Amino acid sequence: VLESWSFLDTVESNFRPLVVIELAKGTKEETIEWFTRRIVDKKANGDVILMYFLAYFTPLYFKGAQLLIKPLENGVENIYLVGASHLRLLLGAETVGLVKECSDNSMRAFTYSSRKTFKDFADDNHNFLTMAECQYIIKHELENLRAKNEKMIPGYPQAKLYPGKSIVRRLLTSGILVQIFPLHDREELKKLRHSWYGRVKVGYQPLDDIRCYFGETIALYFGFLEYFTFALIPMAVIGIPYYVFAWEDYDKYVMFATFNLLWSTVILEVWKRICAILTYRWGTLLMKRQFEEPRPGFHGLLGINPVTGREEPVYSSLKRQLRIYLVSLPFVCLCLYFSLYVMMIYFDLEQWALDYHKENESNFSSLMLYVPSIIYAVVIEIMNRIYRYAAEFLTSWENHRLESSYQNHLILKVLVFNFLNCFASLFYIAFVLFDMKLLRQSLATLLITSQILNQFAESLLPYWLQKRYSRRMKKRMCSQKTDRDLSIAEQVNMEKEMGTYLGTFDDYLELFLQFGYVSLFSCVYPLAAVFAVLNNITEIYSDALKMCRVYKRPFAEPTANIGVWQLAFETMSVISVVTNCILIGMSPQLDALFPDSKMDLVLSVALVEHLILAIKFIMAFIIPDKPRDIQMKLAKLEFESLEALKQQVRAFQMQLHFLLIHH
Amino acid sequence: VLESWSFLDTVESNFRPLVVIELAKGTKEETIEWFTRRIVDKKANGDVILMYFLAYFTPLYFKGAQLLIKPLENGVENIYLVGASHLRLLLGAETVGLVKECSDNSMRAFTYSSRKTFKDFADDNHNFLTMAECQYIIKHELENLRAKNEKMIPGYPQAKLYPGKSIVRRLLTSGILVQIFPLHDREELKKLRHSWYGRVKVGYQPLDDIRCYFGETIALYFGFLEYFTFALIPMAVIGIPYYVFAWEDYDKYVMFATFNLLWSTVILEVWKRICAILTYRWGTLLMKRQFEEPRPGFHGLLGINPVTGREEPVYSSLKRQLRIYLVSLPFVCLCLYFSLYVMMIYFDLEQWALDYHKENESNFSSLMLYVPSIIYAVVIEIMNRIYRYAAEFLTSWENHRLESSYQNHLILKVLVFNFLNCFASLFYIAFVLFDMKLLRQSLATLLITSQILNQFAESLLPYWLQKRYSRRMKKRMCSQKTDRDLSIAEQVNMEKEMGTYLGTFDDYLELFLQFGYVSLFSCVYPLAAVFAVLNNITEIYSDALKMCRVYKRPFAEPTANIGVWQLAFETMSVISVVTNCILIGMSPQLDALFPDSKMDLVLSVALVEHLILAIKFIMAFIIPDKPRDIQMKLAKLEFESLEALKQQVRAFQMQLHFLLIHH
Repeated sequence: VLESWSFLDTVESNFRPLVVIELAKGTKEETIEWFTRRIVDKKANGDVILMYFLAYFTPLYFKGAQLLIKPLENGVENIYLVGASHLRLLLGAETVGLVKECSDNSMRAFTYSSRKTFKDFADDNHNFLTMAECQYIIKHELENLRAKNEKMIPGYPQAKLYPGKSIVRRLLTSGILVQIFPLHDREELKKLRHSWYGRVKVGYQPLDDIRCYFGETIALYFGFLEYFTFALIPMAVIGIPYYVFAWEDYDKYVMFATFNLLWSTVILEVWKRICAILTYRWGTLLMKRQFEEPRPGFHGLLGINPVTGREEPVYSSLKRQLRIYLVSLPFVCLCLYFSLYVMMIYFDLEQWALDYHKENESNFSSLMLYVPSIIYAVVIEIMNRIYRYAAEFLTSWENHRLESSYQNHLILKVLVFNFLNCFASLFYIAFVLFDMKLLRQSLATLLITSQILNQFAESLLPYWLQKRYSRRMKKRMCSQKTDRDLSIAEQVNMEKEMGTYLGTFDDYLELFLQFGYVSLFSCVYPLAAVFAVLNNITEIYSDALKMCRVYKRPFAEPTANIGVWQLAFETMSVISVVTNCILIGMSPQLDALFPDSKMDLVLSVALVEHLILAIKFIMAFIIPDKPRDIQMKLAKLEFESLEALKQQVRAFQMQLHFLLIHH
Repeated sequence: VLESWSFLDTVESNFRPLVVIELAKGTKEETIEWFTRRIVDKKANGDVILMYFLAYFTPLYFKGAQLLIKPLENGVENIYLVGASHLRLLLGAETVGLVKECSDNSMRAFTYSSRKTFKDFADDNHNFLTMAECQYIIKHELENLRAKNEKMIPGYPQAKLYPGKSIVRRLLTSGILVQIFPLHDREELKKLRHSWYGRVKVGYQPLDDIRCYFGETIALYFGFLEYFTFALIPMAVIGIPYYVFAWEDYDKYVMFATFNLLWSTVILEVWKRICAILTYRWGTLLMKRQFEEPRPGFHGLLGINPVTGREEPVYSSLKRQLRIYLVSLPFVCLCLYFSLYVMMIYFDLEQWALDYHKENESNFSSLMLYVPSIIYAVVIEIMNRIYRYAAEFLTSWENHRLESSYQNHLILKVLVFNFLNCFASLFYIAFVLFDMKLLRQSLATLLITSQILNQFAESLLPYWLQKRYSRRMKKRMCSQKTDRDLSIAEQVNMEKEMGTYLGTFDDYLELFLQFGYVSLFSCVYPLAAVFAVLNNITEIYSDALKMCRVYKRPFAEPTANIGVWQLAFETMSVISVVTNCILIGMSPQLDALFPDSKMDLVLSVALVEHLILAIKFIMAFIIPDKPRDIQMKLAKLEFESLEALKQQVRAFQMQLHFLLIHH
């Protein structure tokens, strides 16, 4: 029978379960024993800290992750709880490169040897690292548990291993490991829920608390959502009178569009600054980029990686290019064609509804006018979702080595399709049919329908399903127990059945499309911003609900910015300059201003467009990406690290020199 | 009397003079003694290497630069030769962060402790560092000779010092130090001259030799000049038949312009790749950025730098902003206005010449047609040069703390003015007068005149002056000596009177304006590329002549790219898309294609323009900035340095641990 506890420190009084490992039912005893032993094993025998250091010289020599593991009491036999001693977590924090605040308020990379200089650090303060950080460290250590000289997973000869292969990733891909997920902290979650959406209040979200609980990626999404909502308010406020007073003047629309176009540049640039402020405070702005390992799904023939010199699967870049250009690209084009085909069907329907309305004019028939748009909006949403799965499958099949490369190809595929799928009909109405009334109606229907659908599909439906399930679960358990506080075993059993949060991709995509609806045709439908603001306010609540109630807790992911989405939003903002200028150029009021020469009209519009584009680029260039005080702090840190590195390396060399002299 | 020799090594048989220091005549003995002592002094007494290391802990504690200095024999008394021992240079190479090739063909930062692993390293091989590198190291060490607790330069109470102030910079600004310059190596220079422009041959320039002799910045300029010339050849070749067959077809011009626009994007992207290949080979791609010290001319009240915590002059950013926006900006605007005013005078002249030609038609009068353009071209060149000095003065007066910030503001000022000054008349002719014939004539005259003027003013005139001067010098010396090989003293006396090369700024600016002439109106005057190619071929020779014969040898400056010029060229290429599209849109042939609707014409042109711009941006995005093998090598180095840093820091901590245990 395996020893289920391992002590890194001499005394570790309380085991705090942080992460849950669920193995497949019926996993062989031999495999479980080997796997838990690898998790528990010390890096090596002997002095703990010294050996921890030594482990860096010969990573393959040492076996274990030196974590704590315990089978779930009273629970199903294939579930294990993983924790770690306080010391182990601190050393892990150094390994993953966590950046924490020092006593002098500067942010520095945490190292065990300089631990005393950090704010709130005390040897007995187990809250120095947040629970999310501890869980991130454990995930990192588990994923870096690498095969030594095992050729396969014991008990499963078909699950091949090679030196340096991550054991957990192989267990996951071969289905022996069902899932790894971090546990919720019910006390903390309750507090967070209360301050986040528990009471009806006007104010900011508790971003720092969200970050402590869910990590930086998710906190940054909510930060962006909130910022974006606030940034839309001026547009919404300016847009309301257009609706109330039914303004249709050309000059007012031009003013609104111009404001919109420049404003969207400003908000995107200012977001970079706010993002820098947030991530500096959270330490991720300073976190060093770790060397990127191959992604879990990557496969290939065993070869030598020319960069690391390590043995790992190698996949020819040519083959990948062939797959991308000969399969993925045609497939995407086919999907785009299909999307356009569906659009044409929508226009037929629209025509049919219009004819119907003309023939028998009634309240019902005027309602019928909206039906094609609503149906089309639903179809668009469905197509987006189906395409999303296809894109994931294809990108995964392209077999990218790095997660970042996989993500870039996936995002590119999805963005192009979603953009065309959502906006093609609007472009067609605007620039081929020249029907501004239909454009406005279609835009409104698409925007509102997609918002309602999204809110429903994303949060409310899963919430309802989850609620029903947990009620049933509780009923079953209550037959045995009446205690209101669930035991760990019950909590784990509850949480393991919850859905998995698949990352912020869909949430950002939704915002991206919303930004498109608001900015691409802003001069035609100023009310779009109002709907966007209203939607985003409820979105904050429903997304918060989704994070806290519907899904398993996700692992925290340190991140310093919103990545490729910044570029995507900026591109959308450039495209919207072009569309808005064309729309304004087509307006009959402007036409009336140039009665003699259409030429002059078009030339002036083109001139204005180029001017706005130039101003946008100059503004993006002039507004610094980081506020001045953050720049200063970064410069100071860089200066110090240059100085320190010099000193440290010299000191080391000097010591060697001493040693050589004195021996 | 001062000891003029210092021995870092126990035996240093041959003193090789590398750098010349010229003090003002009549400099006080006390000052000279203090200054030479500071140059000569050891970092500290005791073990050389150990103390070298120690110097990093308390930079202000140690006094000297530990270089060798010698008064010029037979020469004027205020000139000194500076050299350094081989060991000192090797240690200096580590300090400045030189990157050299290892025995395994990888590029690594040189360290003294790992010296044996470098290619061609041997303790007795004094050619391991090139002479340019040695001179760069000496310059770096001299500039980093900092005041300790001196309050002023001995003998000059008005020349204030404060702890950490660079002594050499203060001596230069207070006029005690006239100049510091590196010596030519007459043997090497002869070889270089021969292989560079000595024989008439078709082939590449010896870029690696140029880099060894003049450093990376200059070699990169010549590399860019050569690359740019080759890149223009396809344009020139395509352009010739337009002249020969007098093609005036609309579709042929469109083809030429489209090719030009896409080609210019390609060449600028490909240059980045070539630049990466060159600078990887030269080691500068990998060189770590050093912490940027305040520029020599920067002044302010003594305060604490918030980044470094050191005492240094501080100048309020607000004051600088005020100077920029309240003085510099209005001044630049005034200059622009003046330039436009001169342009209007040129048009009056042009009109006058035209009238004259109409009244009395003769060969002379048709020649007279070109006179206004030529005069205007000369005036433009003169204005450019005067403005350049004004811009330098203003930017210097703005008192920027960093050299990079100074350079950016200077370049921005100069580029804006030069762009307007050179191209305003062409824009006016093209888009206000709509006179394509005049545009072509004006463009040709401006381009050719400015090229001739530049070649003359930049190289031939200084060369002639220099030749006359050195002939006179030689004559005077030959009265005493007939030996063909000049002694060091004579060489120094010759070289100290040569002009100082002020950097690559003017050379790049010339290429930038040339690029403007070629690309902005390429569809009107395809022959511009031909002239540009012809000019650049002679430019290579005259610039080479200038570097080798006219100017003092410049200090080598490591650099990894052409910096802000890349951005400037790319911006020009974007602007040229717009101008060419408009020009094509205005062509009467295209007009004839759309007889019914001018609208359709303008819309199609705008569509094509947006398409080309989109293609440009996508191309710039798709073409990787570094070739794949360089990317791999960089990734490998990054991986290794991450691993090594981990190991080194651990090893150091481990040693400390051992020490703590064993004591």
